[in-house]
Amino acid sequence: MTTTRSWLEAANGDTDFPIRNLPYGVFDDGRGARCGVAIGDRILDVARVDHGVDPVLFGEPAWNAVMAAGPAVWSALRARLTELLSDEAHRAAVEPHLVAMASARMLMPFRVSEYTDFYAGKHHATNVGTMFRGPENALPPNWLSIPIGYNGRASSVVVSGTPVRRPWGQVKGPDDALPRFAPSARFDIELEMGAIVGQPSEGMVSVAEAEGMIFGYVLLNDWSARDIQAWEYQPLGPFQAKATATTISPWIVTKAALEPFRVPTPEPERPLLPYLQARVPGLYDIDLEVALAPDGAAETVIARTNYREMYYSAAQQLAHHTTSGCPMRVGDLLGSGTISGPDRENRGSLLELSWGGKEPVELAGGGQRRFIEDGDTLTLRGAAHGDGFRIGFGACSGQVLPPVALPDWAK
Amino acid sequence: MTTTRSWLEAANGDTDFPIRNLPYGVFDDGRGARCGVAIGDRILDVARVDHGVDPVLFGEPAWNAVMAAGPAVWSALRARLTELLSDEAHRAAVEPHLVAMASARMLMPFRVSEYTDFYAGKHHATNVGTMFRGPENALPPNWLSIPIGYNGRASSVVVSGTPVRRPWGQVKGPDDALPRFAPSARFDIELEMGAIVGQPSEGMVSVAEAEGMIFGYVLLNDWSARDIQAWEYQPLGPFQAKATATTISPWIVTKAALEPFRVPTPEPERPLLPYLQARVPGLYDIDLEVALAPDGAAETVIARTNYREMYYSAAQQLAHHTTSGCPMRVGDLLGSGTISGPDRENRGSLLELSWGGKEPVELAGGGQRRFIEDGDTLTLRGAAHGDGFRIGFGACSGQVLPPVALPDWAK
Repeated sequence: MTTTRSWLEAANGDTDFPIRNLPYGVFDDGRGARCGVAIGDRILDVARVDHGVDPVLFGEPAWNAVMAAGPAVWSALRARLTELLSDEAHRAAVEPHLVAMASARMLMPFRVSEYTDFYAGKHHATNVGTMFRGPENALPPNWLSIPIGYNGRASSVVVSGTPVRRPWGQVKGPDDALPRFAPSARFDIELEMGAIVGQPSEGMVSVAEAEGMIFGYVLLNDWSARDIQAWEYQPLGPFQAKATATTISPWIVTKAALEPFRVPTPEPERPLLPYLQARVPGLYDIDLEVALAPDGAAETVIARTNYREMYYSAAQQLAHHTTSGCPMRVGDLLGSGTISGPDRENRGSLLELSWGGKEPVELAGGGQRRFIEDGDTLTLRGAAHGDGFRIGFGACSGQVLPPVALPDWAK
Repeated sequence: MTTTRSWLEAANGDTDFPIRNLPYGVFDDGRGARCGVAIGDRILDVARVDHGVDPVLFGEPAWNAVMAAGPAVWSALRARLTELLSDEAHRAAVEPHLVAMASARMLMPFRVSEYTDFYAGKHHATNVGTMFRGPENALPPNWLSIPIGYNGRASSVVVSGTPVRRPWGQVKGPDDALPRFAPSARFDIELEMGAIVGQPSEGMVSVAEAEGMIFGYVLLNDWSARDIQAWEYQPLGPFQAKATATTISPWIVTKAALEPFRVPTPEPERPLLPYLQARVPGLYDIDLEVALAPDGAAETVIARTNYREMYYSAAQQLAHHTTSGCPMRVGDLLGSGTISGPDRENRGSLLELSWGGKEPVELAGGGQRRFIEDGDTLTLRGAAHGDGFRIGFGACSGQVLPPVALPDWAK
């Protein structure tokens, strides 16, 4: 029987964090960084309660040790936390270890081992391909056979709330003879989900085994400098255009919490090779949105979409990742690729929303945007909606600051 | 005054490891993994001697802590080791802590934080470009402006001696309607140097600052599945084609040991942007070779080249890597890109040596190779040659094993 109510009333109403969610984060309320579990408007200081797992798993402010402990521990911990936060008998022991979310700063919930970003949304790939190569060549020939991915930069992954500096880089207009070194003028977001690998592998794994390795999900914004990317990406792919920052939401929503919301990937338009064929639905019905707030002004929701729009699931991506024998590690992060839907309002990047800058996006308070301007705050939000409750991710937010002053040696 | 002789006679003759080298590795002689320094035919068990630096730096079997301690510690340690191994007065205290190299197994010398591979050899880029796009489009338009790089997979970096399994992957011939899942039939090497980042950065760094961040160099073989790469690499670059393994030589040759062998990068053929302009010579005169030995047979040296053939230096690559604000970490590994020279015998990959498989390479014992066959051992060697001595890297070697049997779920 699913437990649906907590003794903490704030967890039973309008919240991202009901007792059916119980996502994992790392917080600091001024008394040091430590592991926490979101419940309503509070954070459970998990190491302080009778959590029932080895205390060494909370020895550092990161969830990597819990992930490494494996699925049996994942289940046991979730069951115990559910019991502690629903059974009135535990209230007296647990309540002193609830911290007000409003008084805490959220930190990176885990150490990112390596970061891989995929390109597995068909609407996004079609939109971008149409802009760059025309509608007849929109999808690359391999797209319907391979969950295309590239390795990103783990050191650049930051938690929601971290400001992001507009990057410098080499840019070259179509009519320029030589590139210039300039701040990106086409700085953008990509609305993605991040899947977190909780178990390691050596050698090839199946989609089913990959599914079992995934610990949970976060929202992920893959900040992208389109003008830098356009000049650098041939022939070896994006590099500095994607290395400024990748922002994730602070709460790892577990696979267990999302289980009721599973939906299948679409029927393949071209037969998939057997190693990519999925036997269980690999996506989730998660409503997603992007909001843009100019500095000091109200936000406008500029896009709404859903994770079910993806063509490949995280488990398929992870299985593909291992085909070469590539070892995977606890703490690897897989970006889904930009999640756009069929209509204009469903587009998960400004590149698509403004169609390469040609059709500006109107903001509610006046003004418009082709790409991000300095001072803008971009926020992703997401939740799976059940009957009378939601499994939310919290915000994945970052304000874009002006570029640093150019050092003398770069002039 | 440079110290040129050790009290250990084996260090004064025909060796990769004279006292002017003193490279850093991690070894296990059956009594546990620990940090060691190569000298002649021995390994100094460095934590056991009066090395003069904080003992905590040798608390784990990896050189990351020494790297993180910074350039002043790098200099002090090198000076002290030179003294210990040259001054006869220290012989009695030090000699008991020399282990025979022949009795030790070498392990990874450092924990790889992240791995970036570049494409900075002009001969290589021209050869590959000519084969794939024709001589008139050989170099991509950005090549003479950007040290092109992509993020590789740190988890796949292994030390010399580790066998390498031929990978499976998606391949598609030009006349095939659909891709097949098959073992790579065009498995290859890339002869490279690896630069090891020994100091972290946040934000943009100059070429001079980047130079100061580099701790040392290894030989690096970027194993590459050409057929997998050809089908997967558009539009986001190589992924599984490069993720099977990257082998490095076991000894980190320090920047200090290579100092006498500095040579400049070539005069740029197109003006470089100021941030890439180097004020000190950034390459080294290091002779390099590739040998191929069929299973149980004698080896043939199939290529000879030199690190000075590169167009961009590691410091230029590292400076470029930071332009976006990308944070760099202690233990980051930068592959130079394949080091080919102007002539056929200078080509650093079988792809180039056999010109895409069209001109097989003849082996000394009979037989020929287009690409690697199962059982072949590929070995890179390198040394900077001084007057009567050399600064060697040791071997960077790996035997290619047959692919694993295809699991049922992939059939």
